[in-house]
Amino acid sequence: MPELRKDPVTGRWVIISTERRKRPNDFLFERPAIIGREHCPFCPGRESLTPSEVLAYRQNGGTPNSRGWDVRVVPNKFPALQVEGGLDREGDGMFDRMNGIGAHEVIIETPDHDKTFASMSELEIERVLSAFRERVLDLRQDRRLRYILVFKNQGATAGATLEHAHSQLIALPVVPDFVREEIEGARRHFAAKERCVFCDIIHQEVTTGVRVIQENADVIALAPYAPRFPFETWLLPRRHAARFEDAPQHEYASLAQVLKSVLMRIDRALESPAYNLIVHSAPFNETDGVNLADRVNQRGADVYHWHVEILPKLARTAGFEWGTGFYINPTSPEEATRVLRAVKV
Amino acid sequence: MPELRKDPVTGRWVIISTERRKRPNDFLFERPAIIGREHCPFCPGRESLTPSEVLAYRQNGGTPNSRGWDVRVVPNKFPALQVEGGLDREGDGMFDRMNGIGAHEVIIETPDHDKTFASMSELEIERVLSAFRERVLDLRQDRRLRYILVFKNQGATAGATLEHAHSQLIALPVVPDFVREEIEGARRHFAAKERCVFCDIIHQEVTTGVRVIQENADVIALAPYAPRFPFETWLLPRRHAARFEDAPQHEYASLAQVLKSVLMRIDRALESPAYNLIVHSAPFNETDGVNLADRVNQRGADVYHWHVEILPKLARTAGFEWGTGFYINPTSPEEATRVLRAVKV
Repeated sequence: MPELRKDPVTGRWVIISTERRKRPNDFLFERPAIIGREHCPFCPGRESLTPSEVLAYRQNGGTPNSRGWDVRVVPNKFPALQVEGGLDREGDGMFDRMNGIGAHEVIIETPDHDKTFASMSELEIERVLSAFRERVLDLRQDRRLRYILVFKNQGATAGATLEHAHSQLIALPVVPDFVREEIEGARRHFAAKERCVFCDIIHQEVTTGVRVIQENADVIALAPYAPRFPFETWLLPRRHAARFEDAPQHEYASLAQVLKSVLMRIDRALESPAYNLIVHSAPFNETDGVNLADRVNQRGADVYHWHVEILPKLARTAGFEWGTGFYINPTSPEEATRVLRAVKV
Repeated sequence: MPELRKDPVTGRWVIISTERRKRPNDFLFERPAIIGREHCPFCPGRESLTPSEVLAYRQNGGTPNSRGWDVRVVPNKFPALQVEGGLDREGDGMFDRMNGIGAHEVIIETPDHDKTFASMSELEIERVLSAFRERVLDLRQDRRLRYILVFKNQGATAGATLEHAHSQLIALPVVPDFVREEIEGARRHFAAKERCVFCDIIHQEVTTGVRVIQENADVIALAPYAPRFPFETWLLPRRHAARFEDAPQHEYASLAQVLKSVLMRIDRALESPAYNLIVHSAPFNETDGVNLADRVNQRGADVYHWHVEILPKLARTAGFEWGTGFYINPTSPEEATRVLRAVKV
């Protein structure tokens, strides 16, 4: 059983999941060769190589776990967390632990082994976003869960071990550190100004224009003012809303359009770099632990604003970053914006 | 001029330092070959290849920037921050920035190109720790600076670009996020219990013993209860003290002994993995922004406890970690302790 443990100094949770190791005494890090077409478990006709699907889109119906799907969602074969069981929160002297309960799923984005988000059609991307939404809506009914992270590792440097286009979803019984920090930061801004910090960012960026990469009626893509990574890009809906999964359909279509265009720009300007793509959305029970006045006035629904972050892996993370949470970025966001805007798409 | 920028949501600072890029239009990440003996700028006789030394230990005196040194400290040739100038804190609409003022130095740990911390003598390691101390004591007189991070990237995977054993020091005009979180966590614990959280950890770990890797009269090495990385190891002085640079001499000797032994264990058990080593110490002006009652009762000097963290780079960091600050660790600290203890040194 995986275990969740809390650091008594920082309050940071970690998952201890020994099941993820192939062999009990294998501690060494082998940079595994990324699995290509020949042994790909995500290609059509190989459905039996994955756990049974929890969701699939098939245009002409058809049997589960057979060919004919456009998007397919399956449990991760090497899950970091386990679905069955109770949390069994308990102390261990001064320390805190609970069982590693949660979900870990894989969204296979296309039957075509050679496609990427940048080369899929807008409609294909929209279908993937719909699958994200549907899985989150299903899992958020589970009262043991507090947060769902939807993310994508593109390329070996970003942590991908399979070539075939896929995203992942991890549902957690605790709210992760970075999410808590973002919510708290947004709450501080709201308390001071009675405005959403992300709405304020959109307003300032649209006014100055120097960090706007791309936009349409619903979605704006920008280089953030203080990016951790070169060419870091945020995609924000113009309409204020706390949760990705509650967006109206036309916002997914608009997001798919901007996403495809931005990823094409990144691929062309930077020779298809590895990247992580992360959906930032409000936790389910984020008002827990907040006092009642805060609950009424500054609920997550008011203070938070969902968005998508793309983090290209062009730089190396070293001791300075690990020691401080402080990033050295050799490319300014204004320069990254100029470069990405100049790409013809 | 490098620039410090603050993220308006999380309050996280980043350094935008375009000087670190070799060519203006070179955005691509080339995993540079680590510089070996042939072109090593840190070997004796090549002192002119580095900026002028700011500190050196020479047993028989001798001219600065010539041969005959045991430890040598020089400014980084590609500094992330600049020493000269004012901070010029200012707003940019809703955003905050200041000049990238600070120091970025390299500690060349030995004249011998082939040595590592694990293969140096205890006395040689102690000499390196003394150099750390001396540079921190000098730089903390600069009132523009708030924090100094001393760290080491060992191996290419950990971010090293030169083979020759060296550490780095970055002095910053702001307190980094992770440090602030640790201090705040320690403060919360002190407020609740009137005890140092690190002293409590040492007490519980010594009592149960299952995560103690090595110890001597002054220093204890343990696997933390909630490690982010497999084989993560913390070295803590038994005596409560907030700052590394204020330790008595015998603690550096004891730290050198445990450090050498622990790194030998890690090298033998895990085939000399890449790792980051980070000195955690209290900020200089950490009471700023704390109210007066807190200042009197819970100063950093009371609540914080300096220590050294070793983070082996055996696992890969991917979208989940970047998206959450939440780590999946495939090796429990109890298992890591058993493995490291079993190594003969």
